[in-house]
Amino acid sequence: MDGESAPVLIDGRWRAAAAVGRFRAFDPATGEAFGESFPISGPEDVEAALAAASRAAPALSAADPEAIARFLEAYAAGIETSAEALTAIAHRETALPAPTRLRAIELPRTVLQLRKAAEAVRARSWTLPTIDTAAGLRSRLGPLGKPVLVFGPNNFPLAYHGIAGSDFASAIAARNPVIAKGHPNHPGTGLALARLAHEALEAAGLPAASVQLLHHFESDVGLALCADARLGAIGFTGSRAAGLALKAAADRSGTPFFGELSAINPVLMLPGALAGKAQERAAEYAGSCLLGGGQFCTNPGLLIVPTGADGDAFVAEAAALFSAAPAAVMLSEGVLAGLEQGVEALRAAGARLVAGSAQRTEPGFRYAPGLFEADADAFLAAPRALQTEAFGPVGLIVRSPDQQTTLAMLDRLEGSLTGSVYHADSDAEWARRFATALRPRVGRLLANRMPTGVAVSAAMNHGGPYPSTTARGFSSVGMPGAIRRFAALECWDHAPGAWLPDELSDANPHRVWRTVNGVPTSGPLDG
Amino acid sequence: MDGESAPVLIDGRWRAAAAVGRFRAFDPATGEAFGESFPISGPEDVEAALAAASRAAPALSAADPEAIARFLEAYAAGIETSAEALTAIAHRETALPAPTRLRAIELPRTVLQLRKAAEAVRARSWTLPTIDTAAGLRSRLGPLGKPVLVFGPNNFPLAYHGIAGSDFASAIAARNPVIAKGHPNHPGTGLALARLAHEALEAAGLPAASVQLLHHFESDVGLALCADARLGAIGFTGSRAAGLALKAAADRSGTPFFGELSAINPVLMLPGALAGKAQERAAEYAGSCLLGGGQFCTNPGLLIVPTGADGDAFVAEAAALFSAAPAAVMLSEGVLAGLEQGVEALRAAGARLVAGSAQRTEPGFRYAPGLFEADADAFLAAPRALQTEAFGPVGLIVRSPDQQTTLAMLDRLEGSLTGSVYHADSDAEWARRFATALRPRVGRLLANRMPTGVAVSAAMNHGGPYPSTTARGFSSVGMPGAIRRFAALECWDHAPGAWLPDELSDANPHRVWRTVNGVPTSGPLDG
Repeated sequence: MDGESAPVLIDGRWRAAAAVGRFRAFDPATGEAFGESFPISGPEDVEAALAAASRAAPALSAADPEAIARFLEAYAAGIETSAEALTAIAHRETALPAPTRLRAIELPRTVLQLRKAAEAVRARSWTLPTIDTAAGLRSRLGPLGKPVLVFGPNNFPLAYHGIAGSDFASAIAARNPVIAKGHPNHPGTGLALARLAHEALEAAGLPAASVQLLHHFESDVGLALCADARLGAIGFTGSRAAGLALKAAADRSGTPFFGELSAINPVLMLPGALAGKAQERAAEYAGSCLLGGGQFCTNPGLLIVPTGADGDAFVAEAAALFSAAPAAVMLSEGVLAGLEQGVEALRAAGARLVAGSAQRTEPGFRYAPGLFEADADAFLAAPRALQTEAFGPVGLIVRSPDQQTTLAMLDRLEGSLTGSVYHADSDAEWARRFATALRPRVGRLLANRMPTGVAVSAAMNHGGPYPSTTARGFSSVGMPGAIRRFAALECWDHAPGAWLPDELSDANPHRVWRTVNGVPTSGPLDG
Repeated sequence: MDGESAPVLIDGRWRAAAAVGRFRAFDPATGEAFGESFPISGPEDVEAALAAASRAAPALSAADPEAIARFLEAYAAGIETSAEALTAIAHRETALPAPTRLRAIELPRTVLQLRKAAEAVRARSWTLPTIDTAAGLRSRLGPLGKPVLVFGPNNFPLAYHGIAGSDFASAIAARNPVIAKGHPNHPGTGLALARLAHEALEAAGLPAASVQLLHHFESDVGLALCADARLGAIGFTGSRAAGLALKAAADRSGTPFFGELSAINPVLMLPGALAGKAQERAAEYAGSCLLGGGQFCTNPGLLIVPTGADGDAFVAEAAALFSAAPAAVMLSEGVLAGLEQGVEALRAAGARLVAGSAQRTEPGFRYAPGLFEADADAFLAAPRALQTEAFGPVGLIVRSPDQQTTLAMLDRLEGSLTGSVYHADSDAEWARRFATALRPRVGRLLANRMPTGVAVSAAMNHGGPYPSTTARGFSSVGMPGAIRRFAALECWDHAPGAWLPDELSDANPHRVWRTVNGVPTSGPLDG
């Protein structure tokens, strides 16, 4: 037991970890460790959390949805009340701007997601209730009856955190216990969030082990956990390498793995979109590409721009903006190292630096932006290498001589979260053709917009074809759809009313939208 | 090329296979091979089919849903027109009763599934269209843009056939090309179906490679195909061993694998259900367990019956029925061998034969039914072994001394497709508790009914927790849900109307049910 570092939350109690090591957070702005020490949990903690969550699962499955909704709302309110403290620690741990990013955008989004989850829990239509009276069959999506393990990423300390983000809210909304793994880059943020979650849980009267937090564990422990058949599902947001390793472990036990991995999010600039607008478009592009140090899942990593004067003007404007941009503070030493590798891969495949310096600087974990350019021929010769994700303030522009070459490039794109086509009326027909070509390769298809900015909406798709995610039928953002990832289809065949959940009952007391004999209705069965 | 055996259907043409071997069908009733020879396709055929399907995918994605519906309906009509010939060949190849099973039940079900798929294609609500006007977002489920590989099982030569069953209909309904692998136990049936599918496809004007058939390939070729990233998804119905091997291959390339593997489908008999009804219940049980030679995915493989006089009477009645039952003709030599292994595993774990002989007989692939019994202690000591699937006319009854012991047994059940609780008003409260315990362990929960008999209904769940299936959020039977397995979530962000599919357009010309700003409606956007 490790009484000298922060406690872990297991089975409803804050307790000393059975740690195999310790770590501290780094301030990316200085590169120096600070604050208290956090435990690296060993197999004993993981087993304790998994056993407790497994015991809690039946009771949570049977919990009143109203209690789940109250928990989510109380937690959201707690986060709002603690907004200043939360954003202060998150800022110190990530160097993401406290007022403009964390306080103004990410924290409200976190709160909104929890509230939208509560709303979906009450409306119950995420369960897709379906009744066939002639066949005596009633079905819905329901809880897994097993815990969900959630890994959050480094780049969203709040809105995607394992204990506060969309995966967390989705899994709890479906009444599954969550075992959250914190991210070692922002353990203090995770601890503060978990304290709020724990308080809200106790107030809602839900089972104590419904929400648990381990700050960190080593990869061998994580792989063993993902392969454990007691898990009902896994949510992961992070790097492709880590995600695919964990997915392979989960696959061995047949555990569904919902991973959001990486993406380059191609953006096409058609001639009409640039004519007389080089400056405006370049500002949009540089703004999106450099936002948050370029550390977004939806960062526009690849821009396809026509050769010729308008394209040249665009690149010149973009180059000026990249050159003028200050060095970005990156989330961690690991992110810096990964970025350097990514940039090296791009250079090796023929990308030329056209603006900025694209190199590490000081103090702390800083990186000076860089804009790269490559020819279409180079891209067609090495499409894989030139789709290497350079997670950071780095952009790659590929110059295309004609529309057929652009089509050939699109044909070689890997799956991405997003794809954008900038165009004007003058090239509407080609824009439609490119959109059609992009459609099966991206989750969200944008017209005349940069991809950063993910609205919390039922119609959002923050997802995409493999390898950008591992389940292209689902979005990780947007209720109620995101909840359905962590659900089991349950059917009752000629069952007595006492066995049925409210949303499948004759009375339909909550007026849930359901499909009865093929027709959507929110009334009672005879109504 | 192999001109001496039946042709394969690749890229819209019937052509000689690039075969690595040949095989013939066996008549299970005699054990003798008969009829023409069929090719075992090698990698060359597989590559040709995959390449052709990949080329066809974009055109099929863009096909008019009306053309898809016409294909499905023309195919269904063709099957009906050829019903006598189809059931004759299927009967010869499988020994399943031609009039009572194939003609009266399985063929109409096959036709119904295709027609329900056509209906769902026209209604379009399987796409779950969702519009958020304030956020400028519109999303739906759409085609994968890649081919789907479908493996059908040995036990349903029509209704689950790779080129005619629910996986086939679902994948095509979502506008994905299908590469069907026939089953070597009934190649003549597959050939006859494929000829009908091909004719219907040509009449509908869909891309020629939308439907392809390879009669058979060896497992190494199948594993390589499943690992090919050009596939969009895989549908599989068959044995656990084969399914898990193919899933592991698919997992390597991130290809979704929808497998229906095996299940023992527990049935609980509560005291009230037996009181004075031993004979009636025994007849229900024996009828379900011996139906089709016990070769159903939903066969009740495990019955939990109380100790005591009523339970004894039930077992005695069931024993009499098993003893009197004639030997069943099994589907193949392989099924017989697998059944013998399963029975051996049950015996080794303490199951005692109480009726029948449970052994291979002649002529052909016959097996004499056997009823086994085990104590609850034996089950609790070896729950895995006593859940071995014995695919055939074999039942296992475990005698439980009390309700707590029954609960302990339920706690050790693997995932199954179904679970049943027989009860009367006198034990309604225990029935509810057992139902609750079974709920997370089964896909379909039945009251006072045996599990065989799978209605083609939107509210059906022919699915269940791993390892009964590999995707417990979905049913493989029942439109429109089954279609969603083979779909990608597609989102348009501020896209022009010309980019949108009809079901996301302002006009909503087909009056599709969709969720607009949170509310289900089938009207136009301003309506």
